[in-house]
Formats: sequence, C-alpha cells, structure tokens
Amino acid sequence: MSASTATRLYVDEPLAAGQTLGLDQQRAHFLRSVLRLKRGAELALFNGRDGEWQARIDGLGKGWASLEVLEQRRPQAAEPDLWLVFAPIKRARLDFMVEKACELGASRLIPTYTRHTDVSRVNVERLAANVREAAEQCERLSVPAVEEPTDLKALLQRWPAERRLLVGAERGGAAPVAEALAAEGERAGAAPWAVLAGPEGGFHASELDALGKLPFVTAVGLGPRVLRADTAAIALLTCWQAWLGDGDQRPPFRA
Amino acid sequence: MSASTATRLYVDEPLAAGQTLGLDQQRAHFLRSVLRLKRGAELALFNGRDGEWQARIDGLGKGWASLEVLEQRRPQAAEPDLWLVFAPIKRARLDFMVEKACELGASRLIPTYTRHTDVSRVNVERLAANVREAAEQCERLSVPAVEEPTDLKALLQRWPAERRLLVGAERGGAAPVAEALAAEGERAGAAPWAVLAGPEGGFHASELDALGKLPFVTAVGLGPRVLRADTAAIALLTCWQAWLGDGDQRPPFRA
Repeated sequence: MSASTATRLYVDEPLAAGQTLGLDQQRAHFLRSVLRLKRGAELALFNGRDGEWQARIDGLGKGWASLEVLEQRRPQAAEPDLWLVFAPIKRARLDFMVEKACELGASRLIPTYTRHTDVSRVNVERLAANVREAAEQCERLSVPAVEEPTDLKALLQRWPAERRLLVGAERGGAAPVAEALAAEGERAGAAPWAVLAGPEGGFHASELDALGKLPFVTAVGLGPRVLRADTAAIALLTCWQAWLGDGDQRPPFRA
Repeated sequence: MSASTATRLYVDEPLAAGQTLGLDQQRAHFLRSVLRLKRGAELALFNGRDGEWQARIDGLGKGWASLEVLEQRRPQAAEPDLWLVFAPIKRARLDFMVEKACELGASRLIPTYTRHTDVSRVNVERLAANVREAAEQCERLSVPAVEEPTDLKALLQRWPAERRLLVGAERGGAAPVAEALAAEGERAGAAPWAVLAGPEGGFHASELDALGKLPFVTAVGLGPRVLRADTAAIALLTCWQAWLGDGDQRPPFRA
C-alpha cells in the first residue's frame, strides 16, 4: 500500500498500537462494498488527538468491521488556529465552501446569521459529515468542529479579544489582502485568527459599521471583481494560509 | 437603480450611445419572466471591448426584447492576462471551478487532457455559458474565452515562450507560493501567466518530469494538505491575483 494513497478514516476512539476497534455500519459498508477491501487490507486512521496510525482490517462483514491498530505513521502536530465564520448560503455552495474550508485548514466552522442572510436552516450534521470526508481526503490530522448556528451580533459580543478577524470589504479604503497580510510580518504561528464570510447580499450597513469599530477586525480588499460569498471565503482562507499560516509546509509522505 | 446592483448582461454587439439592439429569446425571457423587468427599466451591458454601458428596455415581449444604449458607465480597461489550463474533472466540480476562475479574473480557460484525466468529454458550450453568467455577476468587463479541449503534450509544445506557468506541486522541493510570488517582485502588469490545474489523480510522473524541465514553469507549494484539483486551481488563481495581478484594485461604484 502506498503511503500517500492510503484510505484514511477519522475515528472517535483513542489510537494506540495493538488496540482493536469497530466501525459503524456506514463505514463498514464503505470499506466492504465501495472500496471492496478484504480482511488483511491496511488503511490509515486519525482521531484529531493521537496522530495518524496504520491499521489492518481484522474482520469485515455485512454492516460491521473490526480493525487492529498497528504502528503510528505520523505524530499529532499543531495546526493553524483559524476559524471560518460564515453566513449560511444555498446548499450546493455551502457544501462546496465547507469542503474547501476544511482543505484550506480551517479549524472551526461557525454558521452565523446576518441581516441579509436568507437561508433559515443549517444542517449541522450534514456539514460535519462533509468536513469529515474532506479531512480524510486532504490528509489533515484533525476534523474542523462545526458549531451550532449563532448570529453575528451575539458572536461579536462574546468574541475573544486576542483573536483577529479578517473581513473581505467591497467598499471603503481597505488595504489589498497581500499588503495587509504582509504587514502582519512573520508567520504568527500560534496567533489565532478567523475569517468572516457574509451572505450573498453582503453585510447590512449597520453590520459593516459595527465591524469597522472593532479593534480585532482587519478589512481587506480582494481585487476589482465582486466575489460571491463562497469565493470570498475561499480566497481569504487561501491568502491567510499562504502568508500567515502553514503555507510553507509540505504534504506528508511525498518525496 | 443602484449602480452596484444593476442587472448586467454580456452582449456580442458593439456598444455606443443611441444604438439599439435585440436580445435572443433566452435572455429576453430572463428579463421578462425571471427578473420581471418592464419597458423603461434600465440595466448595464458589456461586450468585452467597449466598456460598460447603461441601457434601457425599449420593448419586451414573449421571446424578444429591444434595448436602447444610453451612456457609458465605465470605459474598457486592461485586465490581467492569466490563463487557466485545467484537466477536465467531474461536472459539478468543473462548473464550480470555471465559475470561480471567472470571478478570480482568468482571461482564458483551456481544457487539457492529461494521462490521469478520466473525464472524456467537455461540454465547452456549457462552460462558456457558465463563465458568461459569472462574468455578468462579478462585474468584470470581459468574459473569459473557453477553448476547445487539447492535450497537455501538444499544449506545452506550442506554449508561447514569454508566458509563465504556475503549477501546484505536492512533491519535491517547490517553494511556498507566498515566497515564490513575492520573489517575482513588483506587480508585473502586462506579464502573461497561466495556472495549471491537474486532474484529481494528479499528474503522471512523466508529465511532472517534463514540466520540471520547462523554463517557463514555476512550481509552488500550497501547504501540507493535499488539495483537490479544483481547490488547487482556485488557490493558485487567488494567490496570483493577490500578489501579481489586480488585487490592489477596488470594485467599481463602491464608496
């Protein structure tokens, strides 16, 4: 089995050499009927705490699978502390945005109602399943948490003072994102940030006013084209990781 | 009508004050039955050559519309010369990727078969319709051209020597994208570039070898997570625009 093409599964259980664990019906079905793996096949497991482990299928039947954990492939490592605060948008774009947010290393996803948000319900379980699958696919060692929806005013009132908030601004004299991030200087390492993505209709003027007065907010420009909500979120996450995040690291197990 | 929320349509015809023009059946239907506009309503037109113009609906019936061109809203302006060369991927992701490429200012989209490409057909007309709609939405003054599919070997053989090619590399000692683009120095303005996005399976070793030997190729790293093909394309376009493109410009008509 090639190290870089391993099937990877997120599990809740602690991972340690010699441990055995069972899979739920859905994932057992996935291994057996979709991937057509057999007893003895190996795969990789991670749980967000114990790093990544090699495991072997010990038994596999209709709706069940048992795995034996073998040796550690990678230790758990610190990851950027980058939240994505986003107004719910329509389903296809939302699914796409959270997948990309996971690939781009967001650590927490916070659905947040704003005044122009016209999507009234967020299926947190579906989003959580999407980000888990994206995390397995992109080889990160954690799955971003998906929070229950909140609203922007409440979120900003309880905002942790040390966490910076990067906002894409279509209006006003915002600095270009490249300049603004370069001005932050060296890679911050442990500095916590968040990216704020508005609804398709943009923020209400009163929301922009409130954001503009907050000391932890950095408003940036993303060029002359008016980006959709999902595009703006992806662009901000991309730029933050490239300039302040782990953009200088390389994927694991690649020569 | 607010300048920033105008309905915008791309048309083929030349645009000049006092001119009248007709719309095809589909777009006439869109104005009348989807947007529910009436005779006398105003909208914006652009054709990629003459800037953006205010226009008024002169007549509107079932399947037809005639417009009178009023005054120019914005002159045509130079835009970054940035191609996206991409391996065809599955439909939903492909549609999403080309929409984002348009929003992120790609000037030309070139579907390109590679050895690991497992999508055999590209609907160029559908892609062209998607990018036209995205161009109307994001307020750019041009619609990216969508070329007929080619293959990577042929494309590289006829590659114009002065055009640089930005490639995301999972393997090898590629510099982080932020460093590589910063090293390009000042905003290049007229310098032509392209971004290359591979298929989901990545490039074949022989393709990577060939790319690595080409003097116009710049391979860059995009962090430790393994990005999907569409995500990598979007990330490369985003970073290029932010650092070398028009990321320092602001959207039109915003105070």
